[in-house]
Amino acid sequence: MSEYDYIRDGNAIYEKSFAIIRAETDLSRFSEDEADLAVRMVHASGYVGAAEFFDFHPDFVSAARGALKAGAPIFCDANMVAHGVTRARLPANNEVICSLTDPRTPEIAREIGNTRSAAQIHCWLDRLAGSVVAIGNAPTALFYLLELLRDGAPKPAAILGMPVGFVGAAESKDALAENSYGVPYAVIRGRLGGSAMTAAALNSLARPGL
Amino acid sequence: MSEYDYIRDGNAIYEKSFAIIRAETDLSRFSEDEADLAVRMVHASGYVGAAEFFDFHPDFVSAARGALKAGAPIFCDANMVAHGVTRARLPANNEVICSLTDPRTPEIAREIGNTRSAAQIHCWLDRLAGSVVAIGNAPTALFYLLELLRDGAPKPAAILGMPVGFVGAAESKDALAENSYGVPYAVIRGRLGGSAMTAAALNSLARPGL
Repeated sequence: MSEYDYIRDGNAIYEKSFAIIRAETDLSRFSEDEADLAVRMVHASGYVGAAEFFDFHPDFVSAARGALKAGAPIFCDANMVAHGVTRARLPANNEVICSLTDPRTPEIAREIGNTRSAAQIHCWLDRLAGSVVAIGNAPTALFYLLELLRDGAPKPAAILGMPVGFVGAAESKDALAENSYGVPYAVIRGRLGGSAMTAAALNSLARPGL
Repeated sequence: MSEYDYIRDGNAIYEKSFAIIRAETDLSRFSEDEADLAVRMVHASGYVGAAEFFDFHPDFVSAARGALKAGAPIFCDANMVAHGVTRARLPANNEVICSLTDPRTPEIAREIGNTRSAAQIHCWLDRLAGSVVAIGNAPTALFYLLELLRDGAPKPAAILGMPVGFVGAAESKDALAENSYGVPYAVIRGRLGGSAMTAAALNSLARPGL
């Protein structure tokens, strides 16, 4: 009979995980709040090397936390991001919205000649001002958000630019960091990113500490 | 005014992404079907280096595909995994089930002295035989599944062992690969894994080709 030796207590697993990440990751260039955020994101990725690609605007953590406390909605480009947000951590029972399956989205996608991930942003425009936008999947969504901001769309309080992938992901995040139209941002440079790190970032922002 | 130069067509993005991954990833140790699976998983991770950690039992792809075609349910340890499955790709309108929020789960967790991720497996036992089990988050769920199989639980058709993290993840996947109680498995060795790669694997298994 095999005996399996493992920790069965969730909190003990978290604590040990965070200790390992802090021991193995160079967090010296981050503020204390940013370091907490980085630890959570590394935790979701399973890869301490990811931290070197994190780039946080100096006002990002305070802007995102302030918006969430004030009840801002969280707009997500992918259902996996939305479903990764731990509702119990949110400070103001914030709405978490992904509009991929909104009935308006496919028609808008055809009209604008872009993906549904990008098109869904039109469903957010009425409440985009002061919101938290989390792009964890589609570079097209991040590029299109930038196009809308360029053309005068209402400004979110903070943007998480964390799409993953091989085509456009790195470029979209570089574009956000180069000109975010005054909106504080967090990006993961290069190809890494994705729904798990994005949701982890939102969960970190939702409640200070680990 | 900034001009953003990017591909706006979803299918073109997929095709270019897969071509880049095939060019950069050593897939020579995989069968053709396994290579398609590996490409999808790399795509979800944004990291071609992940492929060296993939370990597929030789019967895994055929066992998982056969089960899905026959209508097997997919049991997932995390909501993010379940919500990453593209329903339209499933061959038999398969049920995709995560029981973290099942009302029985917290009580079972207390009884067995384990996490809710592990405890939820008791909700699956009636239909575990011939199912596809996808563990993309919690090492405790994978370890506990192995304990139940050791003690005579019904056998799934295939197990995706892909929890991510720093405490128990690598060990749980090594344990599955060492003795899967006769069930074909796929694992990602080491710390990497997670809901995105797990959902991508399920989406690849659901429909042959890319």
